[in-house]
Amino acid sequence: MTDQPLTGRLDQQFAFLNEADRLKSVLRATTLCDGSRRENSGEHSWHLALYAMVLADHADPRVDVTRVIRMLILHDLVEIDVGDVPIHSANGMAHASAETIAAEARAADRIFGLLPPDLGPAFRALWEEFEAAETPDAVFAKSLDRVQPVMANLQSGGGTWIEYKVTADQLESRVGSKIARGAPLLWDWIRNRTASFFQS
Amino acid sequence: MTDQPLTGRLDQQFAFLNEADRLKSVLRATTLCDGSRRENSGEHSWHLALYAMVLADHADPRVDVTRVIRMLILHDLVEIDVGDVPIHSANGMAHASAETIAAEARAADRIFGLLPPDLGPAFRALWEEFEAAETPDAVFAKSLDRVQPVMANLQSGGGTWIEYKVTADQLESRVGSKIARGAPLLWDWIRNRTASFFQS
Repeated sequence: MTDQPLTGRLDQQFAFLNEADRLKSVLRATTLCDGSRRENSGEHSWHLALYAMVLADHADPRVDVTRVIRMLILHDLVEIDVGDVPIHSANGMAHASAETIAAEARAADRIFGLLPPDLGPAFRALWEEFEAAETPDAVFAKSLDRVQPVMANLQSGGGTWIEYKVTADQLESRVGSKIARGAPLLWDWIRNRTASFFQS
Repeated sequence: MTDQPLTGRLDQQFAFLNEADRLKSVLRATTLCDGSRRENSGEHSWHLALYAMVLADHADPRVDVTRVIRMLILHDLVEIDVGDVPIHSANGMAHASAETIAAEARAADRIFGLLPPDLGPAFRALWEEFEAAETPDAVFAKSLDRVQPVMANLQSGGGTWIEYKVTADQLESRVGSKIARGAPLLWDWIRNRTASFFQS
């Protein structure tokens, strides 16, 4: 904690926490497992934190699951300003444009900038680490972020695979390769389940 | 990890993670900060985990914030079977009945029982610790669980305080005393903000 007066500090902490509430209104392409409605990025972030707790045994030994949980709680906050880009949409398949990268950086400046100076830069660094997908923690977090919508699609009968006319090969390249990078045995198990969907 | 074959283990892990998805359909009395709709218990759990990350400096030095985050991610899962009991409702004010306690225990048996044997009992123990509200970690987690709906009500213009005709004294006894137990300076700051609402 800094020498900042408590009241000013709490004003900043709650400005951030109240702003974060808006992530509950950012809709993703994926639905809930029962197909009843589209999932929002707040509840998605909760589900991923639970994924990390449950699937920790699939993480590389170098992974700090606690850091992964914190990373996943923060990973989508920039969507408050820029929205979610579905993996199988035209924009999701392309490498992120310079424009998108700049918009996300501005969102991170604004949102993490609401926090006191001892918290904002640390949170932002954790988000940047996730985005870069280079450290073991970020690679595992990215794997989980790809697994969860696959499970929702399997449960709901196809979901975004049908909407975007996804083939088994496209699933392998866009999703499977990224899951396999952080959790190879997990992808083996999931591929067996998706196979029957794509053969039907 | 146990000696269980990987496939059977993953079947159990995903049975639990898919069942947990249903928490996104459990509605709370509180709305989002913008008042647009009622909050669900999945996104609420995410928001609380973020509260713990942001307000960690208010925790007693004995508190392990990492355990608190894990506890908050799990804390509402039994609501999949028993629903949410609003704090200011008649049932919320009463001490939990033997019937409610038994229903929650059955829900915990069923839901945590979906997990492999090295995970289920540990997750259940963390939930029981939260419910008992005796350890420093649980007391801090309970404080945050009381703070977040207060902030939503302040942002949305009254929310459940209006719905349930709550007075300043009732807020102090039902909510304030519990926040103050785990985070006294936090309650001081919040009470100053709620005072102007209850005077108007």
